[in-house]
Amino acid sequence: MASDFSRHLRPAPPVGATVIKWERGRSDINTDQLGEYLHGKVYLARQKRLLDIITKEKIFDKSQQANLSRPDRYKLGLARGKRLRQLQDIHGWDEEDFVMAEYLVDDVQPYHLHISLFTAAMREQTSDQQRAYWMPKIASWEVIGAYAQTELGHGSNVRGIETEARWDPKTQDFILHSPHLTASKWWNGTLGRTATHAVVVAQLLIPDGEGSDPKYTSYGPVPFIVQVRDMKTHQPPKSIIVGDIGPKYGYAPMDNAYMLFDHHRYSQLDPVTGQFTKSKNPGALYGQLTRGRSVIAMHARLVLARAVTVAVRYLSIRRQFHDRDDSDKNGPEMSVLDYSTVQIRILPLLATTFALHYSGLAMRRLYERTRNNGGGGSGTTDGDRVSQDADLATLAELHSTSAGLKSLATELAANGVETCRRAMGGHGYGGGTGLVQLNADYLSKPTVEGDNWMITQQVAQYLIKKAKERAHSLKSRALNKTEEHLKSYLSSRGKEPKFNVMENNAAVVDAFNWRMSWLAFRAYDTREVQKRPWNSLLIDFHKLSRAYSQAMLVSNFYDAISSSEVQSLPPTTRETLTDLFRLFAFQTMDTESRDFQNSGAVSSVELNGLSGTVLALMTKIRPHAVRLVDAWALPDYLLDSALGRYDGRVYEDLFHRAHVLNPLNKVTFNPDYKNNEIVMGSGDAGQILAKL
Amino acid sequence: MASDFSRHLRPAPPVGATVIKWERGRSDINTDQLGEYLHGKVYLARQKRLLDIITKEKIFDKSQQANLSRPDRYKLGLARGKRLRQLQDIHGWDEEDFVMAEYLVDDVQPYHLHISLFTAAMREQTSDQQRAYWMPKIASWEVIGAYAQTELGHGSNVRGIETEARWDPKTQDFILHSPHLTASKWWNGTLGRTATHAVVVAQLLIPDGEGSDPKYTSYGPVPFIVQVRDMKTHQPPKSIIVGDIGPKYGYAPMDNAYMLFDHHRYSQLDPVTGQFTKSKNPGALYGQLTRGRSVIAMHARLVLARAVTVAVRYLSIRRQFHDRDDSDKNGPEMSVLDYSTVQIRILPLLATTFALHYSGLAMRRLYERTRNNGGGGSGTTDGDRVSQDADLATLAELHSTSAGLKSLATELAANGVETCRRAMGGHGYGGGTGLVQLNADYLSKPTVEGDNWMITQQVAQYLIKKAKERAHSLKSRALNKTEEHLKSYLSSRGKEPKFNVMENNAAVVDAFNWRMSWLAFRAYDTREVQKRPWNSLLIDFHKLSRAYSQAMLVSNFYDAISSSEVQSLPPTTRETLTDLFRLFAFQTMDTESRDFQNSGAVSSVELNGLSGTVLALMTKIRPHAVRLVDAWALPDYLLDSALGRYDGRVYEDLFHRAHVLNPLNKVTFNPDYKNNEIVMGSGDAGQILAKL
Repeated sequence: MASDFSRHLRPAPPVGATVIKWERGRSDINTDQLGEYLHGKVYLARQKRLLDIITKEKIFDKSQQANLSRPDRYKLGLARGKRLRQLQDIHGWDEEDFVMAEYLVDDVQPYHLHISLFTAAMREQTSDQQRAYWMPKIASWEVIGAYAQTELGHGSNVRGIETEARWDPKTQDFILHSPHLTASKWWNGTLGRTATHAVVVAQLLIPDGEGSDPKYTSYGPVPFIVQVRDMKTHQPPKSIIVGDIGPKYGYAPMDNAYMLFDHHRYSQLDPVTGQFTKSKNPGALYGQLTRGRSVIAMHARLVLARAVTVAVRYLSIRRQFHDRDDSDKNGPEMSVLDYSTVQIRILPLLATTFALHYSGLAMRRLYERTRNNGGGGSGTTDGDRVSQDADLATLAELHSTSAGLKSLATELAANGVETCRRAMGGHGYGGGTGLVQLNADYLSKPTVEGDNWMITQQVAQYLIKKAKERAHSLKSRALNKTEEHLKSYLSSRGKEPKFNVMENNAAVVDAFNWRMSWLAFRAYDTREVQKRPWNSLLIDFHKLSRAYSQAMLVSNFYDAISSSEVQSLPPTTRETLTDLFRLFAFQTMDTESRDFQNSGAVSSVELNGLSGTVLALMTKIRPHAVRLVDAWALPDYLLDSALGRYDGRVYEDLFHRAHVLNPLNKVTFNPDYKNNEIVMGSGDAGQILAKL
Repeated sequence: MASDFSRHLRPAPPVGATVIKWERGRSDINTDQLGEYLHGKVYLARQKRLLDIITKEKIFDKSQQANLSRPDRYKLGLARGKRLRQLQDIHGWDEEDFVMAEYLVDDVQPYHLHISLFTAAMREQTSDQQRAYWMPKIASWEVIGAYAQTELGHGSNVRGIETEARWDPKTQDFILHSPHLTASKWWNGTLGRTATHAVVVAQLLIPDGEGSDPKYTSYGPVPFIVQVRDMKTHQPPKSIIVGDIGPKYGYAPMDNAYMLFDHHRYSQLDPVTGQFTKSKNPGALYGQLTRGRSVIAMHARLVLARAVTVAVRYLSIRRQFHDRDDSDKNGPEMSVLDYSTVQIRILPLLATTFALHYSGLAMRRLYERTRNNGGGGSGTTDGDRVSQDADLATLAELHSTSAGLKSLATELAANGVETCRRAMGGHGYGGGTGLVQLNADYLSKPTVEGDNWMITQQVAQYLIKKAKERAHSLKSRALNKTEEHLKSYLSSRGKEPKFNVMENNAAVVDAFNWRMSWLAFRAYDTREVQKRPWNSLLIDFHKLSRAYSQAMLVSNFYDAISSSEVQSLPPTTRETLTDLFRLFAFQTMDTESRDFQNSGAVSSVELNGLSGTVLALMTKIRPHAVRLVDAWALPDYLLDSALGRYDGRVYEDLFHRAHVLNPLNKVTFNPDYKNNEIVMGSGDAGQILAKL
């Protein structure tokens, strides 16, 4: 605390701590109960246990992070990664503990790709012999690995990768080589400065003969385990160039790599570091991808919940202007969250956190069920033919669903964080939001693990196939939900059902599925019947995928509020969850209203009434807003936000960050432009120039 | 250049330099001519002249900027600000030269508020005597000033400011005081570490009597000139606490301030540093605001043009996958800019740069005309009564127009930069975009100088007033364009004009104005006739403002392409500008289609045809895309982008930034987690911890 006159000052009343208590007093939603319902006891206990350990360690203090240079951010990340692993040894953390510790520290650490993608690839794509050799070294971090697939010139199209692995039958070596600059590996996390090894994906080339100039046949991209740095000096060999690509949007502590090979010989004769055997079980990789995407959806809801938590707490405390229709201008100004223009930006996003939650959960369960039934694992089903078909149909649906959900969920979260930020006005641009780094870090998500626009083609392709099957065999049995919706649409085609969405929540789900089916058959018609070029239809496909994923979000949300679990919650909680469902659905419908109108799913009169209903729902939800975000149980340490702190001490914290924590205020500068001295009295004019 | 084997490597063919030449060869648009038409010769000559000077100075080198800590960014900013001013002295730069030099360096410098807001306030709100004393000191940077209005607890609502200036008749002093923490000045640029003086806005309080406990009357917020730091030591007095608020989204080099007063006595007796006289000419401030907003619109187009330039150049070079309908998979992969899903994100934004350009220009001209006619200046008109009325009507329209345009233009630019970034896939997340800092810096714009959502109320209020006047006096003369549109709508009300937008460009403008008028009368009806609460209508008002501003963008764009200046340009240029107009208008119409349908402005059949027309327009514009962005004449030094460089050497530059420029690669790290050493061989484990 500062010892000057500022220490006596308090914010003008009503102070945030009072307001936030009052806000909590307005609602009888039991936050603990709702939190437990959302996260489960195990999760919350884990969070508490890890928080106690992490917040005691100075190295995980976040207050100076934003003041460090990018090279220092990497150093800090490395130190934090080491400490996390040390704590894992000390406390015997399991994998989920470690993942949650990383989540709470909320700053990617450079070992991250070692414990995630590298470990998974080594576990699932190696032979038994390789696994026996490598897994202990990987588990003990004796080797640090990365996964080197994408290149400077090639990302999504793995077939186009340029790095070559040429087999030399004479020496029984592979020769890894980068024929062009664009063959440089690029973006590979943990590889830039940290890793000793990497799984390198390269085009496998085998000579047809043994002559001096043999013809090579390509066997496509294949992964190899390559040592990239010396175990003592940590230097790469001369035949490998490897480094960090430099500053980017977020992820300052991560060393994303570039890597080139110059006829790097790679001995196949080594009995254990040999060539990868191709994965025995393609289903495993398939399942891995789907699982990864359900994790992304669950992560998206927490990212969005963070931004919404900060916004709801701050905006209920922040006051600005009096209501224009209020004749008394002497009372306190209006809570900013009471403005309809603020509510329309924040409260639908609050509803979206729940929508993403239920679909993430549903997808996780679906994934687990299909895996248990042999879809993604090694078991075989012994059920009858029909149930096997249904399992395969569910698996195909899951693959498509997961792509669409990944695209929509990361889009909603990334845009939602920025919407919350802007709704917070001036302070929304400040460091006190706790969203500066989150925003930059999260911007990668719409692109990675399947670009959000590109992968919607997969969804459309699946739906066109299903629509085609259905069109040719109208009455055949529907094997999954998607097929049911298409079947039901086709049997009523030509009608305009105009679902009674205002009165009936099940009708809301029907309306979304009708619109999705309408778009699916239209896509089928343009592509399969009219034979229009694929490229000319991509925009429609993207819209179709969005409609499909929106229908899924609405449908899973509806299933959840109709479940016995929700029905057994206290009345206010139950009703508010239903209001959130309706808010999410109606706000989405309003944004896409022309589709709903043109497809005949909803009447024009009802569509015109949506904005009024949305307004009424927001008024109903508003008193519960603070308790609803409380239920997400995001600890202050994670939020790292002056605006979003649980206790509402917004202004005290903003001032503390500025007046006590900001290192710039410890230095006096020389503003005289005729004098090149920067720090007053230092006499030094060249220090900053030397850093350029 | 590195001396290792990477120096022999080239990108895989077709290399970017070849592709970009080929792209330029596809179009016969004369880039220089179009650039001159857009910017004028004077502007382009100025840009060239300043670029030659700036790029010779090491201090303006951008290559290490992203690697510096925030405190170093301030130091660099200060050094750059000093050098800019020194160069101004050396080369005799005028104000416009200085502004453009700042624009090219593209990193805000801490003296910025001194030369902008502080200088303007001192010039326009002081007495002649004050001006004579202060202006020479300000011009010579003998004093460095800031403008301290917003506070921790109050931004937009200036009336709510808490800082007090209490008049003490005994000592003839003002006593500046911060009664609460929330009274702290906040966000005030240049004040945090740099300024010696500030214009401080405080509530003027005058005692009614001379007793020991007099009653004070408030005279509202008034500006005072206050010295905040010693001219020698650069330290504030004990009665002032002032500092920098800390890291925020962007603007790393700027020292945004907090500032508190503890009964700071401010002598009124000083004959020259006395209390501000209130501005004699409120019109000047009014004009200032309008002018500021036209500058924001012109700036927005250049910000968006930067992102679009980078995206168009990179995406025409980048290749990914073969066309699915193309049976030959052996040729080069498809240019990413040929995908319809990429075009739909980029090409309408390219059209938007032109739309913003024409409305920014139109507003600037309108502002200059009204100022010359006495609206914002001191002249008097000697025309007849009618023309005076028309001038006043134009001025009122301008005020409303400028608010709506500020809101829409900054929204389009801020969202557009992010859309371009995402369309660039993986490399879009990298530092090579040249957009990382731009993105963070620009995010302040939707909030500052009138929050984008809040100020739309001004537009709605104006339109409701105009609609009311019109409803009560249907046939009275329309004094400005807005009144004309409302009049024309009202005379055809009840009809559904269904303008023939596909065939006729003038009809496109009519459709936008019809929809705007329809919304305006609806707003009038709900507020003035039905007397609905203001707060419940704010969302509708926001939509109305957007519709009004979209109509303005479309209308000004249409006027430009219909002008003789454009008609005298060569055929391809002229036609392409018309295509851009149609693309902008139709894409906007498609996004807002339900309004156009419900208002009867456009038939459902035509609306259904929009997406096909947009696709066709994009195919037509695509070959000219590179030349169109070239015409914006954004120098490589400004872009600072590997992806967007003029010569197309994308991959060479990305690799150079990583392999040669990145300081992280000059250090070897110790990855052993059991060893706390960070830099290999340093033995130092505590250095980074000490920075926390």
